[in-house]
Amino acid sequence: MNLPSHGSNPQHLYKALGRSLPNQFIDFSANINPIGPPSSLKEKWNDFYNEIMVYPDPLAVKIKDRIAEKEKISVDSILIGNGGAELITLVARYLSGKKIVVIEPTFSEYEAACRANQCEIQYHQLKEPDFPLNIEDLRTSLSKADALFLCNPNNPTGIQYPKSTIISILEECENQNCYVILDEAFYDFLVDYDSFIPYINRFSKLIIIRSLTKMFAIPGLRLGYMVAASTIITELSALQPHWSINTIALLAGEICIQENEFIKESQIYIREERERLLSFCKQYDFVVTSSKVNFYLLRDPFLEEQVEFFNFLLQKGIIPRHTFNFPGLDGNWLRFAIKSKEENRMLMEVLKEWRHLY
Amino acid sequence: MNLPSHGSNPQHLYKALGRSLPNQFIDFSANINPIGPPSSLKEKWNDFYNEIMVYPDPLAVKIKDRIAEKEKISVDSILIGNGGAELITLVARYLSGKKIVVIEPTFSEYEAACRANQCEIQYHQLKEPDFPLNIEDLRTSLSKADALFLCNPNNPTGIQYPKSTIISILEECENQNCYVILDEAFYDFLVDYDSFIPYINRFSKLIIIRSLTKMFAIPGLRLGYMVAASTIITELSALQPHWSINTIALLAGEICIQENEFIKESQIYIREERERLLSFCKQYDFVVTSSKVNFYLLRDPFLEEQVEFFNFLLQKGIIPRHTFNFPGLDGNWLRFAIKSKEENRMLMEVLKEWRHLY
Repeated sequence: MNLPSHGSNPQHLYKALGRSLPNQFIDFSANINPIGPPSSLKEKWNDFYNEIMVYPDPLAVKIKDRIAEKEKISVDSILIGNGGAELITLVARYLSGKKIVVIEPTFSEYEAACRANQCEIQYHQLKEPDFPLNIEDLRTSLSKADALFLCNPNNPTGIQYPKSTIISILEECENQNCYVILDEAFYDFLVDYDSFIPYINRFSKLIIIRSLTKMFAIPGLRLGYMVAASTIITELSALQPHWSINTIALLAGEICIQENEFIKESQIYIREERERLLSFCKQYDFVVTSSKVNFYLLRDPFLEEQVEFFNFLLQKGIIPRHTFNFPGLDGNWLRFAIKSKEENRMLMEVLKEWRHLY
Repeated sequence: MNLPSHGSNPQHLYKALGRSLPNQFIDFSANINPIGPPSSLKEKWNDFYNEIMVYPDPLAVKIKDRIAEKEKISVDSILIGNGGAELITLVARYLSGKKIVVIEPTFSEYEAACRANQCEIQYHQLKEPDFPLNIEDLRTSLSKADALFLCNPNNPTGIQYPKSTIISILEECENQNCYVILDEAFYDFLVDYDSFIPYINRFSKLIIIRSLTKMFAIPGLRLGYMVAASTIITELSALQPHWSINTIALLAGEICIQENEFIKESQIYIREERERLLSFCKQYDFVVTSSKVNFYLLRDPFLEEQVEFFNFLLQKGIIPRHTFNFPGLDGNWLRFAIKSKEENRMLMEVLKEWRHLY
């Protein structure tokens, strides 16, 4: 099977499987906020039209100012990206040919971007079903590495690693002169998150990547940012295409970044739905990861392989994210985004139906 | 002076000059279609809102299909870019460390992107005021080069090079195993253009870059495409960030690419206005380039340096593009976009005023 390497493209998935897309389906494969974008964006949408005629500010001054204010950092420590994916590609370019450790299972773009830049990749494989991260196990790998990619909370497991573990890793990497790329694409779904941004002053090789497309449900616009020492930011920005972030993304971002109430409401909604869904799953004897964010992994422990289960769901118009291209998961889990109450209810109905049949 | 390296950002320009932006000004520094985007885009704008919640198709299937149909080429020969600038950066990345010849004066991003990728840059300088391109002069430079950047019609002069000269260059480069990056960002402003796209079959190292942001006045959205041998496209696309082209740009592009009537009307409008403007300039003893597109270079031949003239224009709220960062122009010319009839009239008034005073 040559399945799509990411979620959110049902048509490519069904095509790869030689199936036709059902008339009605729910896409659980994209990890974005089910509430949709803040209403302020819709209100401004008509005003945005005139801005398509204007080149984006290549310095992205306004949005940087707002991030700097919110995160209490200097604008020189910020790089705005055409989505988190562009920032990952820029880091990979920067690390061309170097030795990279990737803590797996995780977002596949770290490996893809590093391979495209002739890096040597080493997996540090966490073990299912709990995927615990242990600094002792990691130490040997780090001794030979130039950079470590770590996603926290992790995609696709949804697991948040303990702060103390991450600090130990940062200390070890600082000693080893090893970059740490800490991808916090989903940090803002955590109800209480202790930011690592202040640590860029203590750890000179810490690079934090964030996304605005997940919380604000604007993956179509592409917007993310990086926080690191200003020397790193300067070198990376020289590798970035001019006008890389489109005008609409910049304007939308300037609005979104200030939407504190929206973020709070989203966090509470996600937590409630997640607790409801994960309880249900356990009650019906599915294994799930102890996610802290807006998606989770699920498997049917009574099956040797999940393919039959996956096919059943697709036939019912329930589209999870396959995990064939996550090292250590190899298709043995399915990832589900948390969606609207009604969509989650429909998922639970189909899971019940599966459980009664098999 | 540390002036902005591109047009279309009056606020950065005035700030760099220590001036305050006048209340009323006309920005002649951005080379986009003064007619604005096709009306079909405005009609669709509300529908686009829902698409910001959807990840872009990473394969850009629909727009590729339309370009393939229009240009009569295979989709495998097309790469869609986050603006022409991203495609230039990707090529520069691909050519890392190589020897590059840039035909100057031209768009500054070729050099900037190649320098960021440790290329060795050699200028092939064309001479004012006619900037003729001669294969004999170029031959020596090409013998040591890995790649040549050529913009046709050229930015900032607006000059179209003879087809026979370009074909001679392509032949010479093919023999020398040298890539030719032919930037056709403004090709669609030419009333009759004999496309070089069919030549990708004959010249294996020909890479054509096009932009949709100039003709369709959508620089805020970022959209361009590249046409080359499928082997080159495959290698370059591996270096591109995932989801690099935002959903709105893709949707807008799918509409624009079919707007043949709009293109025709724009070409005719630009030709008429250009002829009117250039005649006026000559009549008032300004020197202008023999542009074939939507912008031209202008200088006052009675001045040793154009700074006083530039300042006069800025004070009147007329913002041309300075040329300090174009090798061989060095501030001795000013670039003007062709704008609306009324804006062009106001420019002519101010030029008249300058001529009467000095």
